[in-house]
Amino acid sequence: MTDQQARFQGLPVSGITEEFGTPLFVYDTDTIRADYGRLRAGLRPSVDVYYSLKANPNLSVAAFLRTLGAGAEVSSEAELVTALRAGFAPEDVIFLGPGKTAGELEACVRARIRAVVCESLRELRTLDALAARSGTPGPVSVLLRVNPALAATGSGLAMGGRPRQFGIDADLLRRSRAELAALRHVRVEGIHAYLGTRFLRAQDVVQNTRGILAEADRLGAELGIPLRTVDFGGGIGVAYFDGENDPDPGEITDGINAAVDDFARDHPDCRYILEAGRCLTAASGTYVVRALDVKESMGETFVVTDGGTHHHMAAVGVGSFVRRNFPLRVLNRHGAPATTRYTVTGPLCTPADVLAKQVALPEIRPGDLLGVERSGAYGPTASPGLFLSRGYPAEVLVHEGRAHLVRRRDTVDDLLSAQRLVEFRP
Amino acid sequence: MTDQQARFQGLPVSGITEEFGTPLFVYDTDTIRADYGRLRAGLRPSVDVYYSLKANPNLSVAAFLRTLGAGAEVSSEAELVTALRAGFAPEDVIFLGPGKTAGELEACVRARIRAVVCESLRELRTLDALAARSGTPGPVSVLLRVNPALAATGSGLAMGGRPRQFGIDADLLRRSRAELAALRHVRVEGIHAYLGTRFLRAQDVVQNTRGILAEADRLGAELGIPLRTVDFGGGIGVAYFDGENDPDPGEITDGINAAVDDFARDHPDCRYILEAGRCLTAASGTYVVRALDVKESMGETFVVTDGGTHHHMAAVGVGSFVRRNFPLRVLNRHGAPATTRYTVTGPLCTPADVLAKQVALPEIRPGDLLGVERSGAYGPTASPGLFLSRGYPAEVLVHEGRAHLVRRRDTVDDLLSAQRLVEFRP
Repeated sequence: MTDQQARFQGLPVSGITEEFGTPLFVYDTDTIRADYGRLRAGLRPSVDVYYSLKANPNLSVAAFLRTLGAGAEVSSEAELVTALRAGFAPEDVIFLGPGKTAGELEACVRARIRAVVCESLRELRTLDALAARSGTPGPVSVLLRVNPALAATGSGLAMGGRPRQFGIDADLLRRSRAELAALRHVRVEGIHAYLGTRFLRAQDVVQNTRGILAEADRLGAELGIPLRTVDFGGGIGVAYFDGENDPDPGEITDGINAAVDDFARDHPDCRYILEAGRCLTAASGTYVVRALDVKESMGETFVVTDGGTHHHMAAVGVGSFVRRNFPLRVLNRHGAPATTRYTVTGPLCTPADVLAKQVALPEIRPGDLLGVERSGAYGPTASPGLFLSRGYPAEVLVHEGRAHLVRRRDTVDDLLSAQRLVEFRP
Repeated sequence: MTDQQARFQGLPVSGITEEFGTPLFVYDTDTIRADYGRLRAGLRPSVDVYYSLKANPNLSVAAFLRTLGAGAEVSSEAELVTALRAGFAPEDVIFLGPGKTAGELEACVRARIRAVVCESLRELRTLDALAARSGTPGPVSVLLRVNPALAATGSGLAMGGRPRQFGIDADLLRRSRAELAALRHVRVEGIHAYLGTRFLRAQDVVQNTRGILAEADRLGAELGIPLRTVDFGGGIGVAYFDGENDPDPGEITDGINAAVDDFARDHPDCRYILEAGRCLTAASGTYVVRALDVKESMGETFVVTDGGTHHHMAAVGVGSFVRRNFPLRVLNRHGAPATTRYTVTGPLCTPADVLAKQVALPEIRPGDLLGVERSGAYGPTASPGLFLSRGYPAEVLVHEGRAHLVRRRDTVDDLLSAQRLVEFRP
């Protein structure tokens, strides 16, 4: 029977689910290595690839990307601690986010990370004051996040060219030369901009990179900042739905290289940061769920599984205007021909808890294992894991033919231990 | 200064935030008591009000509703454990959900709850077999969840009258008399149906109740089931947005009473369950956040706060087609006149992280406290608390003039403790 099973680096899926239960996420390091490798190998050495932990902040996933050579882009104190525990050197970490607390800024100063990406002049002043008080030697390195007037094209979620909570408007920054020059305890290393996410066309990523480099060039000159680093974001998408294709990594790296080569003529010592999250981990992950029930309702056939919205909100399509299915397949009868259209749901008490609508599958029986593919990014940590008090799932990393539990499943006690019972008088 | 502050049972908000930090949820038992009391006092004694823990599964919130006399409607093992620890008697608990695992069914059998709400014939057979093996005395009580052919009106999220993963189609149930009669270890106590959620018109709730009672009457007769209990769901909504009003509780209770009185002529010993979640806790809760930054971007003024999507996805409007603002006010300069329109955001690295768009407020300065009101239902547990590794917030219950921490804030160690670091060979 095992030859009919989906395998992860040779391990049959049933062995993994017997050991760790369902539902669970399985991540495959071979896929992460391949996806990172294509990007890294194609890019100039002056371009550093920084892993955006928000895509998948699992400690071991981050640590694996570190062993491959990535830096870390973090945006909370817990992500900073994760990156450091995962073995990233502080000089390979940047911290960004529009609402940093004083505690987060202090943690950045203490850790002496490569750069704090400052998102307002007020934050810059706060950081300057904290750095002055900290007593650590030398200034704190910062990148200025600019909200450029230029808008991105091709993105599902554009971030530039309109009013945003992120960064400093380019116009305001231009008027701030004196204020920047007065800072004594931070050193502006360069410029950061991020124009959007989920770009599926390589040419859009390249065009955005060129636009940001041009803006950085202008701002550097106007503000008198020698540009040691430009972080041009990323937002490289992955295909999830019918009719979508992954952008071509070679086209992306070639285009970025050409843009960087042009820029380097005036800025020979500048280094670059490409942020990459989703495109490094999405394809590596499979959300494995078990069919609990198969039932008919008014002419539609439902498979009710043990997994859903609470672990994988993106696949359920919460927040999307159009319901589209992530790739989904049967894992324990791999390759069996599809015979029936099923609507695959989770166990929650909401009709929105649907993992796939009317998808063609082989005949499903209770106990079967189903896999939602391309689920290695924005999975459990981007989902309401405590909904209905169900808790977060197990996560398993398959590496060199072995399955490692990298996040244990929440227990009932986990869910209750942070709560307190007030004794009410009768 | 404190006389300008919002107060919870006399406690100024700043005292609560100084003790417990921000962001946090504050729940007020006076409001819960009033909202429960209006419903309970208006209803016939034959109608039991069951609190749907999914709305707010906090142990102390549930326990407070128990002291008021509510039963508990749960839909996971952790919710069952929560209800029992909160002091609900097993005979005041029902368990429902379309994807119950064998473990959950066993827990129901062991606890001897009032009823398992069975959602398919397969589940009914599984439960019968589990009950046979359990050795506990007497049959296990069940309600049959029916997916009626009738559709609800007036709901944001209809659940009846269309293909659904919930319950058993009425047509199928009608053909299952022999199968039901063959069950030896479960006893069918009655019928359950749930037609939708967020009804804002009392007449819709009443009309749905009448429709379900009529369906229960027909099914009971056709299947030869004496109806000891009919659970007609609920779905009573609360007003969140401009132009909405809470449904009138008196109109709801009067209408339900009339429906029940009619039904009782043929079923004099029947009891009823009204499920209530949102309408018991929503109004009691305030999400308290602190302004970290105030900034202009391209003509729009932003307040960046320390709270957002990760704690209160509903207020951010994820999953809604139209962006509308929950009620929001400044808490530490209560009553100050509104002078400026602000877009109030969270700290996350996504432009969707917006708590209120263009809302009129007094002048906001960093450090100010803002409150998102009507936030006591579907708050943290319905939100992706691990997004950006930020963690779930503190929750405070104010009762008899004292603030009780009923859920402590996640620490960095909480976020990392379930994870394991694989040692990768270099």
